[in-house]
Amino acid sequence: MASRDAAPLLGGIEAGGTKFVLAVGLSPREIVSRTVIPTTTPEHTLAEVTRWFADHGPLLSLGIASFGPVELDRASPRWGHITDTPKPGWALTDIAGQLGRALACPVGFDTDVNGAALAEATYGAGGSSLAYITVGTGIGVGIVTGRQTVHGAGHPEMGHIFPRRDRDDFDFPGHCPFHGDCMEGLASGPAILARWGATLSDLPPGHPAHTYVAGYLAQLCHTAFATVAVETIVLGGGVMQTPGLLDAVRERTFALGAEYLPGRSRQQIVAPKLGQDSGISGALQLAARAFEGAND
Amino acid sequence: MASRDAAPLLGGIEAGGTKFVLAVGLSPREIVSRTVIPTTTPEHTLAEVTRWFADHGPLLSLGIASFGPVELDRASPRWGHITDTPKPGWALTDIAGQLGRALACPVGFDTDVNGAALAEATYGAGGSSLAYITVGTGIGVGIVTGRQTVHGAGHPEMGHIFPRRDRDDFDFPGHCPFHGDCMEGLASGPAILARWGATLSDLPPGHPAHTYVAGYLAQLCHTAFATVAVETIVLGGGVMQTPGLLDAVRERTFALGAEYLPGRSRQQIVAPKLGQDSGISGALQLAARAFEGAND
Repeated sequence: MASRDAAPLLGGIEAGGTKFVLAVGLSPREIVSRTVIPTTTPEHTLAEVTRWFADHGPLLSLGIASFGPVELDRASPRWGHITDTPKPGWALTDIAGQLGRALACPVGFDTDVNGAALAEATYGAGGSSLAYITVGTGIGVGIVTGRQTVHGAGHPEMGHIFPRRDRDDFDFPGHCPFHGDCMEGLASGPAILARWGATLSDLPPGHPAHTYVAGYLAQLCHTAFATVAVETIVLGGGVMQTPGLLDAVRERTFALGAEYLPGRSRQQIVAPKLGQDSGISGALQLAARAFEGAND
Repeated sequence: MASRDAAPLLGGIEAGGTKFVLAVGLSPREIVSRTVIPTTTPEHTLAEVTRWFADHGPLLSLGIASFGPVELDRASPRWGHITDTPKPGWALTDIAGQLGRALACPVGFDTDVNGAALAEATYGAGGSSLAYITVGTGIGVGIVTGRQTVHGAGHPEMGHIFPRRDRDDFDFPGHCPFHGDCMEGLASGPAILARWGATLSDLPPGHPAHTYVAGYLAQLCHTAFATVAVETIVLGGGVMQTPGLLDAVRERTFALGAEYLPGRSRQQIVAPKLGQDSGISGALQLAARAFEGAND
C-alpha cells in the first residue's frame, strides 16, 4: 500500500520484549498510521519493521524507544545496540544501525522509559524535569532533566536501588535474581505474587502488603525528588492500577520529605496522562529530535 | 588597587556559610587573584564582595556557587536568591541580583556542590556525567549530566535519601533534625560524633562504625549510579579523610551493583582531583557559561 504522496513522516518504534509498536506521524502527537508486531527473532522482527516503514514512508527520521539494556553513548561503536539482554538472540543487536541503513534516515535512540518520560514531560503530565516510573513485571524508570533524557555511563536503572526495610520486615528475601530485595525484588508484580501469592489488587484492603508496597514506592519517589529534583513523577504500570495505591504513595512520599526539599511545592506525583501512548509518542519525539539534530 | 589595564576577567564566588572565596581569572583554571572573606550579614558581606571585584574588575561575568537552598529556576522571580536557610539574616537574600546590578555583568548561579561537580567533570576527575559528594558537617551532592548541572523543581539534596539499615542496626535514631536517620543523619561528621562520641578517624580500625558508615555511603553511591548513571563519583569532605574509607565504599558500592548496571565498566569512584579548588573553579566556570549565554 505504498500509495502516500504526502510529505515524509516521522517514524517511531516502541520496541518491547514481547511486541513492537510502529507508527508514522506528522508530529509526535499526530499519528497517521500505526501497527503492532510480535517480537520474534531480531532478523525476522527487523525485516518486518523495515517492510512496514517502507510501505508507509519515506521517513524524515526514525525514533526508537527500546527495551534494554541499550548503549546510548554516541561515541561508542555499540551505540544503538541492545547490549546484554537475557532475551534469546537479541544480545548485541545493532537495532538503530540496521534500521537506519535500511530506511536511509537519521535515527534517535533511547530506552523505552526515557522515551515515555520525554513524551509525558512534553505532551502529558508536564514539567521540564520528570521521572516516568512503571511498576509491572519489573520496575522501569526513565528520567528527563533540563528537557533531555538522562544517560551517562549507562541509563537509569532505578528499579534496582535498595529501599529501606523496617525492623519487622526481613522475612522475605526478595525476588530480583541480581539484587534480591531491591525495589524490583520487593514491589514489582512478580515480587508481590511470590511473597503473598496474589496480585496486590486481589489482596484485601487491610492486608499488610498494601502498606509495604506503598512504603517501598514512596522511598523510590522520595529518592527521585531528592536526587534529580524532578518536578513531576509519573507513576504507572499494572501494579499501580491497585485502587488507592497512587494516593498512598503520594502521601507517604511527601511525609518522607518532611517539608525539607527545595521546590517541594512544585513537585507532583501523578498517573500517566498519555495512557498507553507515552512510549510511541516518545519514540516519535526521538525521531523529531534526530531530524532536528541532523539538520542543525 | 584598581590598577589593572588588562582585558576583563571572569569573577567567581564560592559562597559558604562561614566564608566567601572570591577570585578573578582568565579562565576557570587560570586564577589571577583570590581572597577569602568571612560570611557576616548579607549587607556587609555583599558590600565587601562588590568592593573587591570593583578593585579587580571590570568583570566579563560573575559566577556564584552558593550554599543553599537556592532558587535556580530562571523563570522564577526568586531566581538567584538564597531561599529558606536557617542562617540568620540570609533567608530570601537576592545574592545574584544584587551583585549583578552592582557589578553590571551577567551572572551564573548554582549550588556550591553543583559548581564543584561541574569543575570536577571538566577539569578534574572527568566525565560528561558526574556526582560530587562531600561528606563533612553535612552530606552535599552536586550532579552533572549531559555536561549540565541538574536542577528542576529544586536542586539535588541527595544527603537526605534514606539508606537501608540492617536488621541489627536500629538503635541510633539518627541526627538529622528533619529526617532522623537519612544519609546525613547517619554518616555526616556530626552524626558519627553523636553516635560514637568520636570522629571516624579517631575510632580504631576494627570499630563497627567503619563498617556502618562505609555501608551507608555505598548505598548513596549505588543509588547515584543506578539513578543518573553517572560515569564518575567524586567522594570528598572531612569524613572521607578517614584512612581506608574510600576503598571500602568503592568495594561495597560495586558489590551492591552485582554486575548488573549497564555502563558499570565505565563507572568510577575517586577522591577530588581539584582538592580545595573545585568550588571556586566551578564558580568561574559558571561565570564563563553566563558570559557565553549572554552572548549567544
